[in-house]
Amino acid sequence: MNVLLLAPDFEISEGWLREMMVAAPGARIVGEGEVPDDAIEVVIVDNPPPGRLGRLLKLRLIISLSAGVDALLSDPDLPDVPIVRLVNAEMKALMREYVVYQVIRLHRGSGDIEQLHREGRWEWLPAAVPASNRRVSVLGLGRLGQTCAEALRDLGFQVFGWSRDLKKLPQIQCFSGIDGLSAMLAQTDILVCLLPLTPFTNQLLSADIFSRLPVGASIINAGRGGCLNEGDLIRALDSGQLSHATLDVFTIEPLPTDHPLWHHPKVTITPHTAAYPPPESFVTPIALNLQKLARGEFFH
Amino acid sequence: MNVLLLAPDFEISEGWLREMMVAAPGARIVGEGEVPDDAIEVVIVDNPPPGRLGRLLKLRLIISLSAGVDALLSDPDLPDVPIVRLVNAEMKALMREYVVYQVIRLHRGSGDIEQLHREGRWEWLPAAVPASNRRVSVLGLGRLGQTCAEALRDLGFQVFGWSRDLKKLPQIQCFSGIDGLSAMLAQTDILVCLLPLTPFTNQLLSADIFSRLPVGASIINAGRGGCLNEGDLIRALDSGQLSHATLDVFTIEPLPTDHPLWHHPKVTITPHTAAYPPPESFVTPIALNLQKLARGEFFH
Repeated sequence: MNVLLLAPDFEISEGWLREMMVAAPGARIVGEGEVPDDAIEVVIVDNPPPGRLGRLLKLRLIISLSAGVDALLSDPDLPDVPIVRLVNAEMKALMREYVVYQVIRLHRGSGDIEQLHREGRWEWLPAAVPASNRRVSVLGLGRLGQTCAEALRDLGFQVFGWSRDLKKLPQIQCFSGIDGLSAMLAQTDILVCLLPLTPFTNQLLSADIFSRLPVGASIINAGRGGCLNEGDLIRALDSGQLSHATLDVFTIEPLPTDHPLWHHPKVTITPHTAAYPPPESFVTPIALNLQKLARGEFFH
Repeated sequence: MNVLLLAPDFEISEGWLREMMVAAPGARIVGEGEVPDDAIEVVIVDNPPPGRLGRLLKLRLIISLSAGVDALLSDPDLPDVPIVRLVNAEMKALMREYVVYQVIRLHRGSGDIEQLHREGRWEWLPAAVPASNRRVSVLGLGRLGQTCAEALRDLGFQVFGWSRDLKKLPQIQCFSGIDGLSAMLAQTDILVCLLPLTPFTNQLLSADIFSRLPVGASIINAGRGGCLNEGDLIRALDSGQLSHATLDVFTIEPLPTDHPLWHHPKVTITPHTAAYPPPESFVTPIALNLQKLARGEFFH
């Protein structure tokens, strides 16, 4: 079975190919142009160019290395085959670390403390706000959002969560729907966005949402750049409605060098680093899905 | 009962005094000089000047606001009365946040990512090392060390712990004794020190200990400044034996402005901020201890 690897950012090595060969002996991993399009049964992708998959006429399965499948789903020529979104344990752990780190950074004012250090200044700081007085809300309670919400809860924060369909999570107050969203925002100090990009979430984080947060709230976006209206964000930061934004994802990546977000004093930028696990961590989940396909266990 | 508050850094307010009055109606909180020394039965301290407590001839109880009681214990004139070390839930949560934040910072190279941002540079970074491949060891498994070790374990790190007496903690490999210390250090990527300052731990983190760590290991000291030999640390960083040190505590605080640690490129300095909870969080634990004293439940 030919498996086309169509993921330019996915750095594979000889070792990775050997590991895949052992884990899925019936599969042959090929690169672009190595075999004719109609000999490809599976494609492993990370945001492929629109239209590309439509030319794979014998395609039976799409495996997405990215948790975000918006680019795939918006392709009008997408073949009508099952899509598997690989969210492995490593990706969950990485996203959890990213979110926990950035929430504590805002909660404890670590950016300011690090600035004191760069200036060589010692300052006795006032007592910290206990985590139990800090309200953190997670937008999106898929596998990534859920593990982040649970980790924050375990660290002692007051955690709320919002998802399209109402979830139930121990000691996390869950909301859904538009009314639920408003109710949650009104009691949020730090808003963490882990939403997928869909017609509903496109530009969801905009002036209206920011105005429903308490004055001085902060946001963290580690979901999709398209979920956030960057112009509205800058206005909300400038007006003081929001006190800080920590962004890992952007409408255009890399973020253009002249973009006003780069040097905004209330913005922290990370270059889409939140949850990019090493290639080895995908060997087993890919192999398991290929075996499932071989056993005819994918229905569509 | 007169309770002398001898803690210059402890910012109390009218509100705090009112809360204490409600929680412990029989106690009168007094400041230095308000009543004669021989009318003081309880003292609430945070590193009092040596010799001061020896003059309180009717003293029955010492309540320490600091988890570190080394300054108290090294006072030759210390009255022979019970000492209660207040480690409340807020202090545990704060230390846990500090340690989790600093461990993730080292693990994910967040300092370098933040530097990229300051330079306005976007860089696609290589895949992150999974937490399951990162070995974090906690020196000291008291109430603070234990909560930190557990939180790191829950985030997916490989966690080891060392204490004077062997502890048992689920999914944390525990060590004790000198041999145990060597065995643990040999497999440590990030060493977190939460030890109290005692004759054994004084200057414990020195050249010998650093040489037992794998080349390139990092350390975090949030215990006591006296546990670390600062000269040896700088030499170990300069030789490459250690790759980074994150320090919250120092031999002399504030760290003198001309101290070489300030501008060492491999050092992160925080001004003793790890776990300083708000005064309100001490009201209940102080009141409970005063009630215990009134009921005659302290034996010595």
